[in-house]
Amino acid sequence: MSGKLTHFDEAGQAHMVDVSAKEITDRTAIATGQVIMEPATLALVMDGTAKKGDVLGVARLAGIMGAKKTADLIPLCHPLPVTKVALDVVPDEELPGVRITATVKTSGQTGVEMEALTAVSTAALTVYDMLKAAEKGMRIEGIKLLAKTGGKSGTYEAKP
Amino acid sequence: MSGKLTHFDEAGQAHMVDVSAKEITDRTAIATGQVIMEPATLALVMDGTAKKGDVLGVARLAGIMGAKKTADLIPLCHPLPVTKVALDVVPDEELPGVRITATVKTSGQTGVEMEALTAVSTAALTVYDMLKAAEKGMRIEGIKLLAKTGGKSGTYEAKP
Amino acid sequence: MSGKLTHFDEAGQAHMVDVSAKEITDRTAIATGQVIMEPATLALVMDGTAKKGDVLGVARLAGIMGAKKTADLIPLCHPLPVTKVALDVVPDEELPGVRITATVKTSGQTGVEMEALTAVSTAALTVYDMLKAAEKGMRIEGIKLLAKTGGKSGTYEAKP
Amino acid sequence: MSGKLTHFDEAGQAHMVDVSAKEITDRTAIATGQVIMEPATLALVMDGTAKKGDVLGVARLAGIMGAKKTADLIPLCHPLPVTKVALDVVPDEELPGVRITATVKTSGQTGVEMEALTAVSTAALTVYDMLKAAEKGMRIEGIKLLAKTGGKSGTYEAKP
Amino acid sequence: MSGKLTHFDEAGQAHMVDVSAKEITDRTAIATGQVIMEPATLALVMDGTAKKGDVLGVARLAGIMGAKKTADLIPLCHPLPVTKVALDVVPDEELPGVRITATVKTSGQTGVEMEALTAVSTAALTVYDMLKAAEKGMRIEGIKLLAKTGGKSGTYEAKP
Amino acid sequence: MSGKLTHFDEAGQAHMVDVSAKEITDRTAIATGQVIMEPATLALVMDGTAKKGDVLGVARLAGIMGAKKTADLIPLCHPLPVTKVALDVVPDEELPGVRITATVKTSGQTGVEMEALTAVSTAALTVYDMLKAAEKGMRIEGIKLLAKTGGKSGTYEAKP
Repeated sequence: MSGKLTHFDEAGQAHMVDVSAKEITDRTAIATGQVIMEPATLALVMDGTAKKGDVLGVARLAGIMGAKKTADLIPLCHPLPVTKVALDVVPDEELPGVRITATVKTSGQTGVEMEALTAVSTAALTVYDMLKAAEKGMRIEGIKLLAKTGGKSGTYEAKP
Repeated sequence: MSGKLTHFDEAGQAHMVDVSAKEITDRTAIATGQVIMEPATLALVMDGTAKKGDVLGVARLAGIMGAKKTADLIPLCHPLPVTKVALDVVPDEELPGVRITATVKTSGQTGVEMEALTAVSTAALTVYDMLKAAEKGMRIEGIKLLAKTGGKSGTYEAKP
Repeated sequence: MSGKLTHFDEAGQAHMVDVSAKEITDRTAIATGQVIMEPATLALVMDGTAKKGDVLGVARLAGIMGAKKTADLIPLCHPLPVTKVALDVVPDEELPGVRITATVKTSGQTGVEMEALTAVSTAALTVYDMLKAAEKGMRIEGIKLLAKTGGKSGTYEAKP
Repeated sequence: MSGKLTHFDEAGQAHMVDVSAKEITDRTAIATGQVIMEPATLALVMDGTAKKGDVLGVARLAGIMGAKKTADLIPLCHPLPVTKVALDVVPDEELPGVRITATVKTSGQTGVEMEALTAVSTAALTVYDMLKAAEKGMRIEGIKLLAKTGGKSGTYEAKP
Repeated sequence: MSGKLTHFDEAGQAHMVDVSAKEITDRTAIATGQVIMEPATLALVMDGTAKKGDVLGVARLAGIMGAKKTADLIPLCHPLPVTKVALDVVPDEELPGVRITATVKTSGQTGVEMEALTAVSTAALTVYDMLKAAEKGMRIEGIKLLAKTGGKSGTYEAKP
Repeated sequence: MSGKLTHFDEAGQAHMVDVSAKEITDRTAIATGQVIMEPATLALVMDGTAKKGDVLGVARLAGIMGAKKTADLIPLCHPLPVTKVALDVVPDEELPGVRITATVKTSGQTGVEMEALTAVSTAALTVYDMLKAAEKGMRIEGIKLLAKTGGKSGTYEAKP
């Protein structure tokens, strides 16, 4: 079963997996996550978006730039040129908090799951940074892969 | 109340806050988070740690390096030279999953909360990356600040 | 007279100047620059700012992050932790175009002129990038230092 | 008309445009710019090039390395592996100052206009950095795209 | 004979060589190097590997990440997405010291010799960093290319 | 004796050592290394320096920039703002090859040995890169610390 951990060779040493024999296919990944906060903190965000400081816009941009730094952050991740990165960063009074969704595409030999997850994670950290003067108790929750397409392992969809 | 969002000026424009008049004090921050997985996936981690690929060791190192990239990732975060970064990355059968705690120190004009949160976040993404061949449904949960000391706002401790 | 080129030693070899004997003082620098464009292109920017895509907000953020990368871009520039970065990125129908001003502060042994100029430059490039689908003929003009304070060479103000 | 701003989606949110359906074609971009200075400052450069510190050589190298950092600096810019970067950095007594021209090539799904402009911009900032001890009043002027080839929008040439 | 120095144009100016007309082929490079130390220092490494701090594992990971930074470090090096990076970092009592071997693959228009050499070099520096509290006199020796395949210049093998 | 490996805690886990209680002192480090090559390859370098492509100048600059990336490359290395970096990169017909010496200074809580060694290492890799079209069999040899001053461990000088 340990053969499943492809990031390690037979001797258990970490390496960057050889993907040179893999086909170049179109690949997409969608990831999500939330920043949970007090209703009063969320009110600051929604007020800001409407007329003042744009917390959501800054977080969206940070997420896009974060996706481009994935191979720099995750030690065994292959570098690859992404062809699309888009983030939805929306306030949600049900949480209460901010809901983040990232969609990343590439055409390459490895998937972009890590790029999508890194985009969500960076956007969430940025939301925290911009609101921490108002509330230190915020939590980043539920970062996960929603779906992926392309590559040998094919399509994946998270169970609802 | 919008005055609380210090990352924006009076016109609501994002900026990097002026901290030049703040005192240089010793500062510490501790953050935590978890990667939740199937018991079978956790078994791979624990087996690996004992004799083969060291998932936890790679994640720990990624977290330390991630802390050093904080100002590069978070748009409005001040750059500062950290003086200590330590991570605990431990398997926990109760979750089941991996529990991550990061402690960061500096002596400076701003705190290291974002450095500690970024360390946890990067380590969690790295755990996901190394185990995703075995399970795509893992979730990163509960990333939050446990405690901070130093600076004008003083000591903070998360409620249990 | 060649002694003025402090980035070169007596043999004419480039080096990063020794500033270890310099005093740590508060330092500020203000730089400016413009992106000149067709009135129709500027109209897109102003329309966007009011209700749609926020060209100016993205450029402002890029400028702030650019300031943090100065020592990475300019070979002989000393790394230093900036304590404030703020940008004004405003449409100006007189140009017509976008006027950018960056203010950077630090407390250190070298000045932040290059950080302010790099912030303006990065914001200007970002404006170009976001508008180039509408007009390829835009020009970046008049990037210069407006003022600096602190350090051995003291205060400087550009002639009007 | 706002549809021209391809860096924003229908809701006006910044994103990295999806280029995954675009053809891979050979692409070239040429950009230019100048650093304007006093004749006495230019004399230092020309003297240096001949026998001492090589301002122009350092700027050329900074421009080449800057081109490689483009996607790191410009938030919505696609990462792409450039296949050629060359800079001309030449003194010009007519200005008086230094004239910079950058040529960048790639084979990819997006153009290299931003890479060429970033190369010019980084080289110009480096010239400023190396000469600022002699003259703080230098100005970076006229950064613009001279020509591009390849891609769906085809060939562009700046009007003289 | 100076035509051999392809990193310079006819005027002797450094540039990033145009590889856009080169074929995309599979390319591999293997490099090696050693860190020479006292037997007592090597004993610390071997002891650590067996039950405590894992010097060799940290160095291996640093080498993998270093390979991804090659184009960022070497001014005229083309950026390219590597498809495999693996390092062997093994203690050798004959030296006495640590022997490092790196294997890098890509499919592209330029080779990966520099990526393999940078991986070895970064791993060696990391070994030094982790052991320098015990011995400052360690030396990094014999960093060289063992073999390469692919590209116009074909296969190379170092003489034994 | 394993207590000497300060980069590991009592449980043997890698961490970035806590230096927050250390005094801020002036620190200097000098490192050296060589690139050994065929006489004909060295002739290309010397010819180039005199009138054409400047191998040594490019390597010197790469070394300076490499010093600034040290904490990014070496996982457990503390980030610190260097106050001086100078490199000598000189041809030596005795080797035959190129001899590199780097001097780095800072005022801080940790030393700059790794910065000096990384500067030498990056310069050596750059020499290799620029000459590899002429000779693939070059070797990087003898990278070591020549001397350091400052800090609790005081002055160190390599035995001749």
